[in-house]
Amino acid sequence: MIIVMKAGAPKDEATAIMKELEDKGLQPMPLYGVERTVIAVIGEERDLSIGHLESFKGVEKVMRVVEPYKLVSKSSKASTTIVEINGVKIGSDQIAAIAGPCSIESEEQMDKVASSISQLGIKIMRGGAYKPRTGPYSFQGMGKEGLEILQKTAKKYNLATVTEILDIRDLDNICEKADMLQIGARNMQNFELLKEVGKTKKPILLKRGLMATIEELLLAAEYILAHGNPNVVLCERGIRTFEKAVRNTLALATVPLVKELSHLPIIVDPTHGTGKRSLIEPMTKAAIACGADGFIVEVHPNPSEAKSDAQQQLTPDEFAILMENIKPIVKAMNKTL
Amino acid sequence: MIIVMKAGAPKDEATAIMKELEDKGLQPMPLYGVERTVIAVIGEERDLSIGHLESFKGVEKVMRVVEPYKLVSKSSKASTTIVEINGVKIGSDQIAAIAGPCSIESEEQMDKVASSISQLGIKIMRGGAYKPRTGPYSFQGMGKEGLEILQKTAKKYNLATVTEILDIRDLDNICEKADMLQIGARNMQNFELLKEVGKTKKPILLKRGLMATIEELLLAAEYILAHGNPNVVLCERGIRTFEKAVRNTLALATVPLVKELSHLPIIVDPTHGTGKRSLIEPMTKAAIACGADGFIVEVHPNPSEAKSDAQQQLTPDEFAILMENIKPIVKAMNKTL
Amino acid sequence: MIIVMKAGAPKDEATAIMKELEDKGLQPMPLYGVERTVIAVIGEERDLSIGHLESFKGVEKVMRVVEPYKLVSKSSKASTTIVEINGVKIGSDQIAAIAGPCSIESEEQMDKVASSISQLGIKIMRGGAYKPRTGPYSFQGMGKEGLEILQKTAKKYNLATVTEILDIRDLDNICEKADMLQIGARNMQNFELLKEVGKTKKPILLKRGLMATIEELLLAAEYILAHGNPNVVLCERGIRTFEKAVRNTLALATVPLVKELSHLPIIVDPTHGTGKRSLIEPMTKAAIACGADGFIVEVHPNPSEAKSDAQQQLTPDEFAILMENIKPIVKAMNKTL
Amino acid sequence: MIIVMKAGAPKDEATAIMKELEDKGLQPMPLYGVERTVIAVIGEERDLSIGHLESFKGVEKVMRVVEPYKLVSKSSKASTTIVEINGVKIGSDQIAAIAGPCSIESEEQMDKVASSISQLGIKIMRGGAYKPRTGPYSFQGMGKEGLEILQKTAKKYNLATVTEILDIRDLDNICEKADMLQIGARNMQNFELLKEVGKTKKPILLKRGLMATIEELLLAAEYILAHGNPNVVLCERGIRTFEKAVRNTLALATVPLVKELSHLPIIVDPTHGTGKRSLIEPMTKAAIACGADGFIVEVHPNPSEAKSDAQQQLTPDEFAILMENIKPIVKAMNKTL
Repeated sequence: MIIVMKAGAPKDEATAIMKELEDKGLQPMPLYGVERTVIAVIGEERDLSIGHLESFKGVEKVMRVVEPYKLVSKSSKASTTIVEINGVKIGSDQIAAIAGPCSIESEEQMDKVASSISQLGIKIMRGGAYKPRTGPYSFQGMGKEGLEILQKTAKKYNLATVTEILDIRDLDNICEKADMLQIGARNMQNFELLKEVGKTKKPILLKRGLMATIEELLLAAEYILAHGNPNVVLCERGIRTFEKAVRNTLALATVPLVKELSHLPIIVDPTHGTGKRSLIEPMTKAAIACGADGFIVEVHPNPSEAKSDAQQQLTPDEFAILMENIKPIVKAMNKTL
Repeated sequence: MIIVMKAGAPKDEATAIMKELEDKGLQPMPLYGVERTVIAVIGEERDLSIGHLESFKGVEKVMRVVEPYKLVSKSSKASTTIVEINGVKIGSDQIAAIAGPCSIESEEQMDKVASSISQLGIKIMRGGAYKPRTGPYSFQGMGKEGLEILQKTAKKYNLATVTEILDIRDLDNICEKADMLQIGARNMQNFELLKEVGKTKKPILLKRGLMATIEELLLAAEYILAHGNPNVVLCERGIRTFEKAVRNTLALATVPLVKELSHLPIIVDPTHGTGKRSLIEPMTKAAIACGADGFIVEVHPNPSEAKSDAQQQLTPDEFAILMENIKPIVKAMNKTL
Repeated sequence: MIIVMKAGAPKDEATAIMKELEDKGLQPMPLYGVERTVIAVIGEERDLSIGHLESFKGVEKVMRVVEPYKLVSKSSKASTTIVEINGVKIGSDQIAAIAGPCSIESEEQMDKVASSISQLGIKIMRGGAYKPRTGPYSFQGMGKEGLEILQKTAKKYNLATVTEILDIRDLDNICEKADMLQIGARNMQNFELLKEVGKTKKPILLKRGLMATIEELLLAAEYILAHGNPNVVLCERGIRTFEKAVRNTLALATVPLVKELSHLPIIVDPTHGTGKRSLIEPMTKAAIACGADGFIVEVHPNPSEAKSDAQQQLTPDEFAILMENIKPIVKAMNKTL
Repeated sequence: MIIVMKAGAPKDEATAIMKELEDKGLQPMPLYGVERTVIAVIGEERDLSIGHLESFKGVEKVMRVVEPYKLVSKSSKASTTIVEINGVKIGSDQIAAIAGPCSIESEEQMDKVASSISQLGIKIMRGGAYKPRTGPYSFQGMGKEGLEILQKTAKKYNLATVTEILDIRDLDNICEKADMLQIGARNMQNFELLKEVGKTKKPILLKRGLMATIEELLLAAEYILAHGNPNVVLCERGIRTFEKAVRNTLALATVPLVKELSHLPIIVDPTHGTGKRSLIEPMTKAAIACGADGFIVEVHPNPSEAKSDAQQQLTPDEFAILMENIKPIVKAMNKTL
């Protein structure tokens, strides 16, 4: 932590803040310049609040030196964490491919999806039983019944499942029925939910919030790890910007940057990341080319009848073409599918 | 709803989508132009999904004509909703002033705040018992004990209280202990929580999300009204932009715009809206001048010792000055405090 | 400047960067902590490039201590700069009101505007002869002929004028014909243009760019002052965000923040700042209430026939009402019109 | 164009706007619904101003049906435009690689760069003689002398050159000395400059503005084409968002989206798009994988001595590694270098 005092701030103001730091077991080192004093602080700065220090008299600004997260940091664990689900090692040289509809709508629908994607070698199926919808009049998901359909069709085709959790009260049931829990973009900072999934050992798919910084994404993951669950897979799914020609702005540089900062695996969601069917394949390729550990794509047997996200779901045939077309890129990256 | 077909799309593609609309009880009216067909749709378009229609073959784009919310719309109720708490009529000519610390930290702290603000005529006190913090190592709030302190000190000084709810499991207890429930910016799209508070009759302070559009804010309120609770007060508290000289960008035009679109009252939070103590007074004045129904400000007996938001809380003395300095603006707007 | 070395960076890497700093006449002061070294730099840091220092081996990050501008800073001149035009002292207790059409379209149009606004006591008229339009097929302005109309009608009604400059080649002519030069949002970082207007003594109205930070706005003004022209009036006119219900997000906190950082006067443009006629009056009031030195509003004798910005220009009658309605706020702020 | 009248707007208001449309040679087709009237407009809507129509009484909103650009649109020319420079066909199956320093600093520096990149097979060298810098105290470029160094070293190594133009007054000289003109992000909407380079036949590298939409980028290109110059290469270089862990947010989905909308070639600038040396290689790979026609990267013989952008320039050795490492991706995309 670096504390910059205001130009001309009297020495006793610097002394007051140094006393506070010493009381907290830290070691302040002052530099008395001609114009102003600068205090460098040695010790565990994560326990200090910038706001607290900035509120001291005479302080101009306070700057962190180290990142505010610990457990998710590469400095706490050098090797990439591998989260294994149904034989897929997310975080390894194997590109994890997750596919399935936006919403679970019927057993027939799920059977068609499960059948088609399992034939392409997919091992993890997505499907939402609880849907976070912007307005109250939109389809809100099938709930418990949807979870049962998900579990049943997955079992039939030997697929693992990932499904979104919205409400802590559903935690036990979802943990029983699904293999991986998704924390959606709108819940990335639902800290109570993060704490609770952190108390399970379930693999967690943590999606970046629409307006969350990369640091906030890592801090959200830190909540989960700090509560005991190391099995977190991050997901870049686009951020909200001024651009309206796409649904979201897929910020792919997040992938190599997270790989520098953290040991957690990271996948990409080109479906929500663009919101446009024709952009999904090129952005899946780009995701793999910049080092993503996998991707998650929406597939529906009949997108125009889908109850949500109709304009961005692929048909099984379109998805089969995508899986074929990405092969050269996967190979170019020395990875496998 | 307006559906624009692609240039040169064959007529049967337009026919297919019109059949779908008729099946849903709507009345499509086609316009066959030279280059392309446009279909205007008469009827309740809120039940239609744009994505669903855009996924039809031959469709170029689908545009809504009316807003997607109903109950919160000015067209459903012309007069401003008044939410009354402890004699303060939020939405009337009376400017509602809400004050109190970011976090409840001790009984002594709350007693000092309650004593000082009640002397200034404040009737509603804020204070957080459950705190949504970006990182897991920050102070997370006093929880139940905090709620009890809040209730006790409020009663002593005849204040009503507003406190944030993060977890549905705390709903009953918070409803018992506090007078108004705050849905914070990070939970504005926690739809399960919105549904549950919508089932109570408690006044709700609904803060705009960091990344939420005004339409999304109104849709979040629509969730609460649709579940039975009409007592919603909206709050503009700044959005996240590229600008880093302030904590958030306080988008004050939200105030007059919401007043055109909705009958719900709206207040402003200049504390979080700027994150900088010196900007709170000018932005409170500006909020009142553009028509806000009130404001909410953080006040702490000793900000530099605060466990959160230290740099943006006012001392009781600073708050007393603010209350004095806004009087001419309140009067200029023909309102009362 | 504070330079933070990487954890474990060898001492000779810190030595190398300190040598560089000494060679540039600065005084580096190292702090050797247990984990890492921090170097505080005493001296004129504005001449140092952060990028240059960050490219040294072993450097983790470089943080500025002081703002990168000098001449516009409050620390270089404590009293507010007053820019006087036609008797209006922008930066004093007098609220400067500037009005006129988006584009100059005809002598008849300008005569009507000039006549109506001069009757309301307005002393400065705006009007664009050169128009920066997003697409090449939109009306590009009347050019030289427009300037002559502007000059002629202004003289008739004893008005001063402000008009936008797009092209350095027009500088002499515009300086001859108009009283104040506007640098529009799209040219805020047209540095060659800033340098050239900096060589004149003309009052400059410098509008904040759509994507410019407050620091960048001040640095753009610094260009003008550094080239010799101290007569700069800043203008907050809204920034681009994700919100689409308004044309731009009017960031009013810019006003009190700029007043803390700089001695330059700052006015607000609620017309472009909202893009919606009904929001102009409330946001003008808010601008005055938070301390703006004035405002600039678009007025057109017949907005629906305007060649640009039709939906956001006021009629002379609407503008007269605005001028009347803001009076109580102006008075409440102890200012005059 | 679709014009939606307000609910309950009297019929004569619709009649008035239809008369206006007919006067302009367009064909309005009204649909009288129960609640409101909708008018579809057949004809060349690009000549109509949305603002103009929205200012008519009774109009709720006006929506475009077609894109506002013509010449750059895929609908006006189906095949990709190929811009050829020094044997490199930008827009073909050949990936165009452009490299060179941020700023031209000396003949020795340029000779080293030119020598190293030409050995790697690079045919086009970048280098800035005129530099747009945020503050006036930063290095502003070598100007004319720089241009001469650029020309001389390029000739020696048989390289073509691209350099940025900031000021129309430099146009003739830059056209004489360089092979391709760059319009930088800050000048993307310097419309006078766009018009002037549109009157030349020089290849233009048009960079996306920091806060420009894709539609605005295409409209900026439309300015150039409309003035007679078809040789435009677009460049995605990152947009400004709330994320500060990277210098800009590289929005790679722009690449496939522009390829759907326009026939112009598009390359990517991963250097400015990330601002971080370690992210350049992964983002170059991603750019190629999603279909970019090329890339432009900053290379400097000694980045830590560079006068600008030191932290994001590659050394010749690092660049050689990048050129080697992208080969498998280029091959996977069935392209050549």
